Amino acid sequence: MEEHVKAALTEDIGFEDITTENLAADGDLLSASLNTRSDGILCGSEVFKTVFKMLSNDVKIVFYFKDGDEIKKGDKIADISGPAKHILTGERTALNYIQRMSGIAAETKKYRDAAAPYPVKIVDTRKTTPNFRAFEKYAVKTGGGSLHRFNLSDCAMIKDNHIKLAGSVTAAVNKLRPAISHVHKIEVECDTLEQVKEALECKADIIMLDNMSLARMKQACELINHAAIVEASGNVRLETVRAIAACGVDIISSGAIIAQAPTLDLALDI
Amino acid sequence: MEEHVKAALTEDIGFEDITTENLAADGDLLSASLNTRSDGILCGSEVFKTVFKMLSNDVKIVFYFKDGDEIKKGDKIADISGPAKHILTGERTALNYIQRMSGIAAETKKYRDAAAPYPVKIVDTRKTTPNFRAFEKYAVKTGGGSLHRFNLSDCAMIKDNHIKLAGSVTAAVNKLRPAISHVHKIEVECDTLEQVKEALECKADIIMLDNMSLARMKQACELINHAAIVEASGNVRLETVRAIAACGVDIISSGAIIAQAPTLDLALDI
Amino acid sequence: MEEHVKAALTEDIGFEDITTENLAADGDLLSASLNTRSDGILCGSEVFKTVFKMLSNDVKIVFYFKDGDEIKKGDKIADISGPAKHILTGERTALNYIQRMSGIAAETKKYRDAAAPYPVKIVDTRKTTPNFRAFEKYAVKTGGGSLHRFNLSDCAMIKDNHIKLAGSVTAAVNKLRPAISHVHKIEVECDTLEQVKEALECKADIIMLDNMSLARMKQACELINHAAIVEASGNVRLETVRAIAACGVDIISSGAIIAQAPTLDLALDI
Amino acid sequence: MEEHVKAALTEDIGFEDITTENLAADGDLLSASLNTRSDGILCGSEVFKTVFKMLSNDVKIVFYFKDGDEIKKGDKIADISGPAKHILTGERTALNYIQRMSGIAAETKKYRDAAAPYPVKIVDTRKTTPNFRAFEKYAVKTGGGSLHRFNLSDCAMIKDNHIKLAGSVTAAVNKLRPAISHVHKIEVECDTLEQVKEALECKADIIMLDNMSLARMKQACELINHAAIVEASGNVRLETVRAIAACGVDIISSGAIIAQAPTLDLALDI
Amino acid sequence: MEEHVKAALTEDIGFEDITTENLAADGDLLSASLNTRSDGILCGSEVFKTVFKMLSNDVKIVFYFKDGDEIKKGDKIADISGPAKHILTGERTALNYIQRMSGIAAETKKYRDAAAPYPVKIVDTRKTTPNFRAFEKYAVKTGGGSLHRFNLSDCAMIKDNHIKLAGSVTAAVNKLRPAISHVHKIEVECDTLEQVKEALECKADIIMLDNMSLARMKQACELINHAAIVEASGNVRLETVRAIAACGVDIISSGAIIAQAPTLDLALDI
Amino acid sequence: MEEHVKAALTEDIGFEDITTENLAADGDLLSASLNTRSDGILCGSEVFKTVFKMLSNDVKIVFYFKDGDEIKKGDKIADISGPAKHILTGERTALNYIQRMSGIAAETKKYRDAAAPYPVKIVDTRKTTPNFRAFEKYAVKTGGGSLHRFNLSDCAMIKDNHIKLAGSVTAAVNKLRPAISHVHKIEVECDTLEQVKEALECKADIIMLDNMSLARMKQACELINHAAIVEASGNVRLETVRAIAACGVDIISSGAIIAQAPTLDLALDI
Repeated sequence: MEEHVKAALTEDIGFEDITTENLAADGDLLSASLNTRSDGILCGSEVFKTVFKMLSNDVKIVFYFKDGDEIKKGDKIADISGPAKHILTGERTALNYIQRMSGIAAETKKYRDAAAPYPVKIVDTRKTTPNFRAFEKYAVKTGGGSLHRFNLSDCAMIKDNHIKLAGSVTAAVNKLRPAISHVHKIEVECDTLEQVKEALECKADIIMLDNMSLARMKQACELINHAAIVEASGNVRLETVRAIAACGVDIISSGAIIAQAPTLDLALDI
Repeated sequence: MEEHVKAALTEDIGFEDITTENLAADGDLLSASLNTRSDGILCGSEVFKTVFKMLSNDVKIVFYFKDGDEIKKGDKIADISGPAKHILTGERTALNYIQRMSGIAAETKKYRDAAAPYPVKIVDTRKTTPNFRAFEKYAVKTGGGSLHRFNLSDCAMIKDNHIKLAGSVTAAVNKLRPAISHVHKIEVECDTLEQVKEALECKADIIMLDNMSLARMKQACELINHAAIVEASGNVRLETVRAIAACGVDIISSGAIIAQAPTLDLALDI
Repeated sequence: MEEHVKAALTEDIGFEDITTENLAADGDLLSASLNTRSDGILCGSEVFKTVFKMLSNDVKIVFYFKDGDEIKKGDKIADISGPAKHILTGERTALNYIQRMSGIAAETKKYRDAAAPYPVKIVDTRKTTPNFRAFEKYAVKTGGGSLHRFNLSDCAMIKDNHIKLAGSVTAAVNKLRPAISHVHKIEVECDTLEQVKEALECKADIIMLDNMSLARMKQACELINHAAIVEASGNVRLETVRAIAACGVDIISSGAIIAQAPTLDLALDI
Repeated sequence: MEEHVKAALTEDIGFEDITTENLAADGDLLSASLNTRSDGILCGSEVFKTVFKMLSNDVKIVFYFKDGDEIKKGDKIADISGPAKHILTGERTALNYIQRMSGIAAETKKYRDAAAPYPVKIVDTRKTTPNFRAFEKYAVKTGGGSLHRFNLSDCAMIKDNHIKLAGSVTAAVNKLRPAISHVHKIEVECDTLEQVKEALECKADIIMLDNMSLARMKQACELINHAAIVEASGNVRLETVRAIAACGVDIISSGAIIAQAPTLDLALDI
Repeated sequence: MEEHVKAALTEDIGFEDITTENLAADGDLLSASLNTRSDGILCGSEVFKTVFKMLSNDVKIVFYFKDGDEIKKGDKIADISGPAKHILTGERTALNYIQRMSGIAAETKKYRDAAAPYPVKIVDTRKTTPNFRAFEKYAVKTGGGSLHRFNLSDCAMIKDNHIKLAGSVTAAVNKLRPAISHVHKIEVECDTLEQVKEALECKADIIMLDNMSLARMKQACELINHAAIVEASGNVRLETVRAIAACGVDIISSGAIIAQAPTLDLALDI
Repeated sequence: MEEHVKAALTEDIGFEDITTENLAADGDLLSASLNTRSDGILCGSEVFKTVFKMLSNDVKIVFYFKDGDEIKKGDKIADISGPAKHILTGERTALNYIQRMSGIAAETKKYRDAAAPYPVKIVDTRKTTPNFRAFEKYAVKTGGGSLHRFNLSDCAMIKDNHIKLAGSVTAAVNKLRPAISHVHKIEVECDTLEQVKEALECKADIIMLDNMSLARMKQACELINHAAIVEASGNVRLETVRAIAACGVDIISSGAIIAQAPTLDLALDI
């Protein structure tokens, strides 16, 4: 995390903050509060603190909420005080992290709430911002979601193109299982009930129902009958998530909770 | 750019793509097309190509649109062919770049179109994703926007907190001008017409009207009368941008064109 | 891989190869062959080539064996020709990779052969050389072994200390399952048959029999009866591996195939 | 060192330690001791501490032995206490360093003891694990060995291939001496007594006797008669090292003390 | 700054300081003073301290002058005390920074003093040592100079080659202004009075008089009459700088204050 | 070298070359020549080429002189042609390398010429620009100089402070010799003839005469009588170097050939 923050500060500062360096004297102090201007879920308090810590050990920050807490428009989230110079220079970078992460947490929470009556997990996908995935995944978890694979090496997922290369679901699974580690699961992406049956017979660990209709998903769940973990994917929107959950799937994966999440409006007020 | 892509591939691949490495033989070839499933502006074709180039020199990509072109739902954007292995492993990372960048370009274009009757520039802010700013700024430009400062070192911007530290707008500008390089401009953030007058007298290069009402902005523009560049900021939304432009400002800056832009739905189809 | 090789060359060259730079003129050419002075398994031909490629595009290398092939004392493994300067400067680094990797592959092969009559996989552990794991794991696979988890994030493994923290195997598994991704398996390290039973009831995906006697391992395998993958660990030596395999386990994990593997004696002869 | 440890932790942790993060609460504390399960030489206590320090300042470690001390099976080497989370996550990486380094130190000590009656130094070679050389060389020194050159830039070594390029030993030395810095020595690798004589006449600083018989080495030492430092190399094994030392050489260099050293069995017990 | 210092220490230390590591015991302490052997301006006290801080927290340094202060031959600049080991190992690197930076500050001060009667700024150029620019620019500022652009992205400068590409000064400015950010200025390099007139008409922010005679520069200043900032460049030497200032320019840019500045003679005496 | 150049380009370009990117179209070509405006020695042609190669493979460069050649005011050094964009953007960085390196080579040549009648080597010191040492040392060699140690690990140098720590020259050498590698020399810095005698008796490999008068140096050389390499250091200036050489020393080391060398005036003309 520190490496990422250091790079982000370099990105935002360039040679130096020419305004603040010349207007804030070394002894100038500042007190400010971090307030929220919309409702949401707090996420990113640690990285927020890290940004200022990279600039100076003298910036003091006290958070009144912790990651995962609901925050309401007008809430004071934290107090921050210390050298004016470092607070003003670090402000934007710190906000850029916490606003984006809180936005994702809030969006995830909405999906989770929508699906709440059902014992289903909302999970992310690999549709993340390049080199920002760790922060985005953490935000999903903070918002009450669960996680899909971190990267291409921690779970095998057989997609339609892999099936074409191997010839069939069965051929793909049979080729893959002895080749990969025994610690890794195999997930199979299925478009049809036939593929679902095939995946079941091959003892796939996870069966993904890709872009299926609600009716088809329900049939698939009955067919699988808990012999594999069932994941629904495709066309997952806030309006559709509850109906999908009602089909009986275990997992609903959504790229939108990260990719379409608006940033949360947080600001530093003096 | 290559360093960023290399890191993104490492982030997404981890130890290795355990599925593809074991299912795609060295000689397996694949042809796919990049299609768009919604309307928008293409942005990121170079970085898309770079992702695959980092994996192999044998992946061939031909784009039928160039960055900045309007694309319509169903359009084939590009053809891609080569070793199945490298295409499948690089697919997600390449899409993550181009989807997010095209989304920002499309959002910027909407703001620009909304303000089109007026000779105003739509510009971004420093509200960007940490360590992804260069890609986001490029997308703004591709969408017909213009750019605000890259970082804290290429333009001085006196904000309310700086004014408090210095005592007044005049004090801040007078302290700053001899201290900074002659190649850098000074922008002053003004909340009131009094501050605008003061900034004018100090010969600020750019005057930012921060969160002013339309009526107040109009007055400010008349007051300034082209003696400084006028930038409107705060509460810029797609619905309000034209009215703001009508006030006579030169520049409208918006964090939303980056922070609230939904990703564009592009996919690789075999 | 290229980053690792670049760093290794910097490590070995320092400022410059003061001997070769001053004795080999730019036009001096050299032909050499890579020979083996002991029996084993070849591993590392790609990284061997990469070392020289980082120094010059003019070094030509032809391998007569491929990774995984058995090689016999006296075999010519490859021919290498090109600028004397680059061959002499890169020689040691290239050999350091290929000798260590071939040594591990050969050691793994011995374990696998010893256990051959039984349908068991020989896998590595996380006992690897810091920052050299990818090369060592590749060598294990090349030698006919399979892999355990890459790192701490791609499979949950509940060890004795985790059990103590959670209170019991059951408590640990029940706390962990909802907290981790559905794509990750749970492995439980068991010292006793009671723990094995508990792990079975909790539906652990993998049960590790840690340092158990052969008799106890046999009992455990019968108890588990293929309801979970069974992994044997601890005191795995070349002399004991077959007897362990005979107990009916699915997986035998060994740190020794990496940590105790002697390097293979390969040399470049002019 | 800190950079190497940071990279090693990243290698071993990946996204996060999914087991420990979910089973060890922030307040959970742990006390453990580092014990040895075989005899040897301790090496790597500093890097062991650094691993945990990179994770947390709250892990306390007290060593009861220092690097270079002999340790006996069953000895408690160190006590470690602090947050369970950080101890469990760092355990494997810390052990991977200290086990390998202690193994090399112990192996070196064996060679040194075998040659003890003679005033000879046991030194390493450049046959090291790529990007791990600094740790391995430190271990050799800790085990009572001395060091050969760090890399290709701190001593000139004329090998057979260099001699072929230059035409003769004499030609090589005469070409090299004026070209290199006056602070660097010249070592010549000799296969025959004729080459030894030639090297002596050229005033080589160090003469390496490469793969010579014991009788030949003795002759060479008499011939040289302390006019140059004499280094024996090739076929140095624990069984042969004393006889080589008896020939009167000053230095015995061995790749085996690093490359063939088994890791020392150290473990963290709660 | 810390990254730069870390790399510089690695550059200077290599594997280890073989002299000091073996002659200075862990408990050996040392007190030394930093003295100047010539007159000049102090610059680099922070980086000097950082060098030793990277090696140990136990080295104490007290400066009796601050950056920008005039120092006279024989002055004691600072006291330094702590572990002999770290002081001796860091000495050269610390001096390499402070000597070069103080040399540049002193040289800049000479130019500034020479031009003192006139309200002109002495600024640097982009003629800096690769990867050392930040330190050199800081030294120019410390010596009383002001700064030109940091890099190619914070101010547009139209040089003769750009003019040739665009066709004319007017064409270049008109093409550039709408393409760049409103926060960036445009500077035009002019060789003749005609170009000056053209640049004035295009409302260039800064007009650079390149290699003009004194008489021509005076004419240009009169022509411009404060409608743009006027910068003189080319053939700026200590002997000519006052006469150039007398022409009425606002800015005199000089590569020599960095490139030709001799290092200042500072030494650490025990 | 490529890493250094990449960093230098990033330093100089920042986000982008806003002038050139907007004025040079993709198809615009340019031909320019690299000319020298003063006499000197060419140094840095490879790094000059590398700068442009990092930007584009389409820039063609032909050098008419090679490193080490004397160049005269007005000589055309090289022709460069290709995309205007890349030539204009890389120009300053490429010149910054070659101007500084050629300046050092020329300065070294002057010292060497001054000392020419005597068989003495002119060598550099560790007084180099942080993180630029490799380029500076190469320039010294190109100018006909020889090199001192690269860093603190390739030669032991006992300075006055080390002597104080050890108690005497003899104590220092005797403690050091068994502790360091047999491949490293020991140099002793001597202020008096007594120290020279002591160093001789301890068989120091190199004896440095530090800041001695010419008469004293002569005496020292006679005393040493080729039993050790003799290096003169301190107060070496262009005017004094021949007289120092005449004393009979083998080596004259000078920080000034790097630290006080003015950059050579080279320019790119269209």
